[in-house]
Amino acid sequence: MPSKMLIMCTSGPDTPTRLGTPFHQAMTAIALDAEEVIIVFTMEGTRLLKPGVAETVFAKKGSSHSVLDSMRDAKECGVQFFVCPSSLELHDMKQEDCIPELDGGMGAASYASMGMQDDVVVFCY
Amino acid sequence: MPSKMLIMCTSGPDTPTRLGTPFHQAMTAIALDAEEVIIVFTMEGTRLLKPGVAETVFAKKGSSHSVLDSMRDAKECGVQFFVCPSSLELHDMKQEDCIPELDGGMGAASYASMGMQDDVVVFCY
Amino acid sequence: MPSKMLIMCTSGPDTPTRLGTPFHQAMTAIALDAEEVIIVFTMEGTRLLKPGVAETVFAKKGSSHSVLDSMRDAKECGVQFFVCPSSLELHDMKQEDCIPELDGGMGAASYASMGMQDDVVVFCY
Repeated sequence: MPSKMLIMCTSGPDTPTRLGTPFHQAMTAIALDAEEVIIVFTMEGTRLLKPGVAETVFAKKGSSHSVLDSMRDAKECGVQFFVCPSSLELHDMKQEDCIPELDGGMGAASYASMGMQDDVVVFCY
Repeated sequence: MPSKMLIMCTSGPDTPTRLGTPFHQAMTAIALDAEEVIIVFTMEGTRLLKPGVAETVFAKKGSSHSVLDSMRDAKECGVQFFVCPSSLELHDMKQEDCIPELDGGMGAASYASMGMQDDVVVFCY
Repeated sequence: MPSKMLIMCTSGPDTPTRLGTPFHQAMTAIALDAEEVIIVFTMEGTRLLKPGVAETVFAKKGSSHSVLDSMRDAKECGVQFFVCPSSLELHDMKQEDCIPELDGGMGAASYASMGMQDDVVVFCY
C-alpha cells in the first residue's frame, strides 16, 4: 500500500477555487498516517510562494481563511513544501526570495523518481 | 494490477473542452473490467452537480450531446459519482440540492485513502 | 517499482506556463531509465499538434525556446507522443494533419489500461 503522497500544485492565484483541496487533502493524508506527504509547486502554483501573494488569495470568496492560512495549517501537520526550480525561472523568481514555509527545491528528477516509487500516489492539481 | 480507478473531476462549466474525457475514460475503464470506477467532483467540477448546469454545457461546441448526457452515459455503465463536501461549501451548495446522478459525498479522508490503495490508479482532470 | 510514466497533457496554447513541465519531466524520466515515457495529448493539449501552433507558444514570455522546441527535445530523448482520437474530433482536427512529431493515436481504452498497470505512474497536466 502506498504510504506516501505527492501532490503537484500547478494552480495559482488566478484560479483560487483550486487552492483549498491540495492543502486540505495533504493534511488529511498525514492524519491517515501517510509516511510522507509532499506538495511540489510548479507552473502557476509557484506564484503562491512569492511573499505577499498567498495571504491575499481566498479559495472561497468572502472567507477570512486565506490560502496562506491553509498552507500553514498543512505545514503544521507535517506536510512538506518544495518548489520546482524550473518554475521559479519561469516566473523570474529566486528560491531565497520565497516565503519561509517553503522547505526547498525539488527538480523534475526528484519528483519523477518519487512518483515512480511503488509506495507513492500522485495527485495533480 | 490496479483494478480501480479514481478520477478527480476538478474542471467545471467554464472549461467545457475538459469535460468529455473524464466521463468517456471512466466508462471505458468499466468496459475494461475495472472493479470500481469513481469520479469525485471537487473544485470547479462541483458546479456541474447544480441542477440546470450540466445540460447547458457542451464539451464540443455545436454538439447535441451535453455534459449531463455524458455523465448519464457513465452512470449507466456503473461509474459512481461522489462530491467532496468541502467543495460544496466553497460554492454555497448543499448535497441534497445536487442532481440525482450523484451517489453521495466523499471527503478528503476517503479519496486520499482510496488513492493510497495498491490497486487504484488516480487521474486528475 | 513503476518503470513507465504516462503524462496526460490536457493544457494547450491558452495556458503557456503549463507547457514546460510536461516535456521537461518526460525527458528527465527517460534519463532516469524509465522503460517507457508516453505523453497523451487530450482536451486543450491536442491543439498543440496543429501545424503552426506549438512554435508560436512559449512557456516563458520572452524566451526563444518554443513549446515545439521542448516537444522536439523530449522526442529526441525517446519520449513518445500520442493523441486521444476523441480530442481530435473535439477540435475538428484529423490525425493525418497533425505535426510529424506525433507517434499515433491512443484511445481511452489504451491509456486507461496503461494507467491500470502496476508499473505505471500517471501525471495529469
